[in-house]
Amino acid sequence: MELSANVIAVLVFIVSLIGLGFVYLLIRRIKKADEGTDVMKDISKSIKEGSNAFLKRQYGVIAIYLVVVSIILGVLVKMGYLVVFVPFAFLTGGLFSALSGFIGVKIATFSNARTAQASSKSLNDGLKVAFSAGAVMGLIVVSFALLDLAIWFLVLNWYYAALPLAERMQNLTSAMLTFGMGASSVALFARVGGGIFTKAADVGADLVGKVEAGIPEDDPRNPAVIADNVGDNVGDVAGMGADLYESYVGSIIATMALAVAAGLSLKGVAVPLAIAAVGVICSIIGTYLVRTEGKADAHALLWALRKGIFSAAILIAIASYFIVVQILGVEHINVYYTVLIGLAAGLIIGLSTEYYTAKEYKHTKRLAESAKTGPATIVIEGTALGMRSTAIPILTVSAAILGSFYIAGGSASYSLGLYGVGLAAVGMLSTLGITLATDAYGPIADNAGGIAEMAKMDPEVRKRTDALDALGNTTAATGKGFAIGSAGLTALALIVAYKEQVELLGHELTLSLLNPVVVVGLMIGAMLPFIFSSMTMSAVGRSAEKIIVEVRRQFKEIKGLMEGTAKADYKSCVDISTKAAQHEMIAPAILAIVSPIAVGLLLGPAAVSGLLIGTLVTGFVLAIFMANAGGSWDNAKKHIEEGHHGGKGSDAHKAAVVGDTVGDPFKDTSGPSINILIKLMSMVSLVFASFVVANALI
Amino acid sequence: MELSANVIAVLVFIVSLIGLGFVYLLIRRIKKADEGTDVMKDISKSIKEGSNAFLKRQYGVIAIYLVVVSIILGVLVKMGYLVVFVPFAFLTGGLFSALSGFIGVKIATFSNARTAQASSKSLNDGLKVAFSAGAVMGLIVVSFALLDLAIWFLVLNWYYAALPLAERMQNLTSAMLTFGMGASSVALFARVGGGIFTKAADVGADLVGKVEAGIPEDDPRNPAVIADNVGDNVGDVAGMGADLYESYVGSIIATMALAVAAGLSLKGVAVPLAIAAVGVICSIIGTYLVRTEGKADAHALLWALRKGIFSAAILIAIASYFIVVQILGVEHINVYYTVLIGLAAGLIIGLSTEYYTAKEYKHTKRLAESAKTGPATIVIEGTALGMRSTAIPILTVSAAILGSFYIAGGSASYSLGLYGVGLAAVGMLSTLGITLATDAYGPIADNAGGIAEMAKMDPEVRKRTDALDALGNTTAATGKGFAIGSAGLTALALIVAYKEQVELLGHELTLSLLNPVVVVGLMIGAMLPFIFSSMTMSAVGRSAEKIIVEVRRQFKEIKGLMEGTAKADYKSCVDISTKAAQHEMIAPAILAIVSPIAVGLLLGPAAVSGLLIGTLVTGFVLAIFMANAGGSWDNAKKHIEEGHHGGKGSDAHKAAVVGDTVGDPFKDTSGPSINILIKLMSMVSLVFASFVVANALI
Repeated sequence: MELSANVIAVLVFIVSLIGLGFVYLLIRRIKKADEGTDVMKDISKSIKEGSNAFLKRQYGVIAIYLVVVSIILGVLVKMGYLVVFVPFAFLTGGLFSALSGFIGVKIATFSNARTAQASSKSLNDGLKVAFSAGAVMGLIVVSFALLDLAIWFLVLNWYYAALPLAERMQNLTSAMLTFGMGASSVALFARVGGGIFTKAADVGADLVGKVEAGIPEDDPRNPAVIADNVGDNVGDVAGMGADLYESYVGSIIATMALAVAAGLSLKGVAVPLAIAAVGVICSIIGTYLVRTEGKADAHALLWALRKGIFSAAILIAIASYFIVVQILGVEHINVYYTVLIGLAAGLIIGLSTEYYTAKEYKHTKRLAESAKTGPATIVIEGTALGMRSTAIPILTVSAAILGSFYIAGGSASYSLGLYGVGLAAVGMLSTLGITLATDAYGPIADNAGGIAEMAKMDPEVRKRTDALDALGNTTAATGKGFAIGSAGLTALALIVAYKEQVELLGHELTLSLLNPVVVVGLMIGAMLPFIFSSMTMSAVGRSAEKIIVEVRRQFKEIKGLMEGTAKADYKSCVDISTKAAQHEMIAPAILAIVSPIAVGLLLGPAAVSGLLIGTLVTGFVLAIFMANAGGSWDNAKKHIEEGHHGGKGSDAHKAAVVGDTVGDPFKDTSGPSINILIKLMSMVSLVFASFVVANALI
Repeated sequence: MELSANVIAVLVFIVSLIGLGFVYLLIRRIKKADEGTDVMKDISKSIKEGSNAFLKRQYGVIAIYLVVVSIILGVLVKMGYLVVFVPFAFLTGGLFSALSGFIGVKIATFSNARTAQASSKSLNDGLKVAFSAGAVMGLIVVSFALLDLAIWFLVLNWYYAALPLAERMQNLTSAMLTFGMGASSVALFARVGGGIFTKAADVGADLVGKVEAGIPEDDPRNPAVIADNVGDNVGDVAGMGADLYESYVGSIIATMALAVAAGLSLKGVAVPLAIAAVGVICSIIGTYLVRTEGKADAHALLWALRKGIFSAAILIAIASYFIVVQILGVEHINVYYTVLIGLAAGLIIGLSTEYYTAKEYKHTKRLAESAKTGPATIVIEGTALGMRSTAIPILTVSAAILGSFYIAGGSASYSLGLYGVGLAAVGMLSTLGITLATDAYGPIADNAGGIAEMAKMDPEVRKRTDALDALGNTTAATGKGFAIGSAGLTALALIVAYKEQVELLGHELTLSLLNPVVVVGLMIGAMLPFIFSSMTMSAVGRSAEKIIVEVRRQFKEIKGLMEGTAKADYKSCVDISTKAAQHEMIAPAILAIVSPIAVGLLLGPAAVSGLLIGTLVTGFVLAIFMANAGGSWDNAKKHIEEGHHGGKGSDAHKAAVVGDTVGDPFKDTSGPSINILIKLMSMVSLVFASFVVANALI
């Protein structure tokens, strides 16, 4: 029995190495692709430098944060509130999350010019390069996650070998949850900081460039154009990588923790690890199936990606059957169905996101039509669309929670039911290797489009990269749906973990809705995602303001800039965005970390439970609303740019640009940060539980 | 003991008659005011006719609804699920709610031209007429509420006199809660239907008139101008009246129901009635203090209203002391403090709303500034502002819940604690007579401005009515804050009432956050306000579309319209809005009524409890966000129109118009309907509890 879990951990370790080996092959393949002309190389280099400058400064701030929190955790260890591994687990979680983002940006900036060049041959060539780069990102994230999990599991299981199983698992999972806290923190900084950077630059560039100066998007005369392209990388790639790394690891750890409570012992611990490992292999296979043949239009692209994802999902579904039967035995076959439920829920969320945001479907087409009556109507309609689009994902996750709970354990065994819900989350995220690939390729295509424009390539190239990019808007929204959907699934597990943590400390918890403290916790929790979104959105506004001032200054002061005889000072815009983002990301991060501790100290752990669930349920809806509204506005604009309702330059187009700009912070800053807010708050609550219980006022 | 409650009920009855008598005096005073020139009278007549046409059709639909639901309730009575009074209580609740709205519109359309005429003398004169009309509305609502409550109480108490106290109260309050369901239903129709009408007309008029044709707001050449002014009445006046009637009655009934459980017997039942009655008297006194002297600027106006409200609050605070000591005895003095908490919470919510939406404060000023960089930034900033503005009201209500719970009963007596929370809600709403007056005067001033413009009165008059109207935006947001804040306070009471109802039926309820069914209920509940808002927002979009088509048609087909030689066909726009509103209000109403029943039948009463709390906590935040964002956008536009950032016609102004238009359905359709959604869902759950429990699947 002992052996089995250790063996699985070793196998997982090996799979992670296979994943990394495959990443190596992909990088070699991308390297062979032509990087294009010197102009293109130059532009790509500027983007690379800008991204590096941002990451350097960002990681500086993060390093300080990690050190400070580690010291605090160390003090809590000293005081006896935490086990000794916690600060180290926290640090590794943070480091690997940061590393996932870092390598993602490296490969993205390495592939952007190559994608543009490949797109000049054909859409399929462009897709291949961009998607390979996306796959690098996806596989890095999942391989790193498995690597860390396997190593920590082996080390802790060995270190605590003398303890009885239950106690050992308690120590093991509590150390690993801190690992999750490290990952969440970095993810929050990456999403918020990157998100502010990218949208400040984007909004700033658009408002002065497109609207005031009347030059096209990605025009090299626009001083903010490089910053805009840097933003695609540091926001969408690095932010997303760190974010999903954390979701992935979090759901696996949570399920492992539930296995012991469910009486499944180490075998139950091994199952989520094994499914995740199989998911990596199946994702690799899936990536080989992503290609378009024949007609290279938007529908063909959509199906190219779907083929890859669907195949991976089917393979995982088959393999999981054998995993469950082999490890847990056929008497636990019900557990297998929960994996299927998770996979199905993931696909439904993905398809529903496409349905609401892709310009091939009626919703976004109708949204584009509402641009004909001006910016106000497209903003109203987009808001309504985003709100409406929350129904399917939320009902799906609700059904998945109840379905997997009752199938796995139900009223007979509460813990087994929870374990089932956890496995559903693992099932949903098991395709992450490939879904993240489809997600990460978007910003690379976006960059390629920028380079095509700046290097004055054939307009046909830009059209192709635009097609890739439009699909990227949809896959990005899907990725966000996955991140938040899995957060929804792991909610129960986290609240149970929190309750157990608190009750281990000898504190009874009344988590009834009749407890006014719980209701107040729910209220405050429901408010936090709004406050958090407000902070991040205002941060974008303030930072964009600075970019606007700078771009206007350059247009005025640099003679010959508009005529194309003088060069813009791109670096200053990158600098301004970088500084603004670092500055602005602090306050939202503090809100996320301090609020569960403050509520706990003031109102006690029952209020914290309410707070977490309140933030979860409201944040869930708000995040999907923002992601889908933003994705749809962006694609509605693209739909008009294809020549509908008057095409580029028409009044409808101008209105659609307003919608798109409003959607920018929705979909790329505030919305995607919310699921990290939820996770980080949960992790902080767990880690600080003993401290809070010991020092709470009531 | 028995006597005391009956005596109080008789006194309440008398107070309600005093309130109605005062209404009569106010109407006589308004009647004396000059209605202005024939042109003004004509315009006012058109608005009156349009409003009547709308109300006639609206009440037709409502009548059908009331009859159908009464029959369903009658069947449930036959089947033994409900007591015999229920259908009648439902009908009277609906009728009085409708009547409140009806009389409000009558008096508003009666006062609009008079306000315009009075404003031509001075700001203070304009304020006097408009505020008197608002006071009629406020006093009608509270007087009717007291009248109904007193009569029902006396009738039921007499009818059930033979029953033991506990059982009698059970029957009495359950019949009275159905009274609340009737009121909520009508309120929902009034808010949603009226909200769709007013904003469809407003958006339609603005988009073709102001933006396309370039004519000013309220220009008589605009065919939708009368519909726009009709909308102010049927949406803001009728909708709000029905809404707050329901909130007021609901909080009093809920507290009465809690009194018996708290062991306070009929004395405890009498206290909320007595406080409400005293509130009416103090509100009447407060209305006499509303006047500006000397400098008649915006600050003076704000203080004029504040003086009235603050004075009423102080008087109520003093009187409540004697009520509590006299009726409950000095040993229950803690109960008195909860009334103070409610009063204070109401004032804080009001001040915080002013702080975020009034153009005298920095937030709205900054919002106006963000218009300088275009429509996208003002939309983003307004969204952020609205989200941020939720913090103070929610923390205030949270503190009020916990404060009144622990002061009144706390851990010693749960029921007494709840009674305290209920009394806090009654305390908050005890100033309703005057706060509603300050709220209802806004749309009247808005109408007066329209008439001044259409009748080509001195621009100075328009400036004065604009000042009145701008303050009206803020007081309207305050009124919405009150409605939703009191909903927050009564949440616990409702959930407890629901639990007791279900447990009386012999069904155990597990309302723990660890119950997956509760969590799923919370998730679905959190989603509903978004779906509901999406429906109402899209409804505005679709209806506005129809108006736009019609206005464009008239501009094209009616020769001489733009030159002012031909008259626009106002009636057709009123007709179109009316039909669209009746049609579009059905679906959201069905969502509100069906969802708690459907969730109950599918997932059982524990899920319903989660659903109600989920809708409450998320709806609370969403409603405040929408109300304040909308109010602030409107006032930012007004700030610019006063000459800031380029003034009327500048690019900043155009951007601010976009913000204002986006805010229209936020603040006047979707946002204010949410609190009724919450209440109606609770009422439906309560009334259908026995049916659902008997027929639930799980």
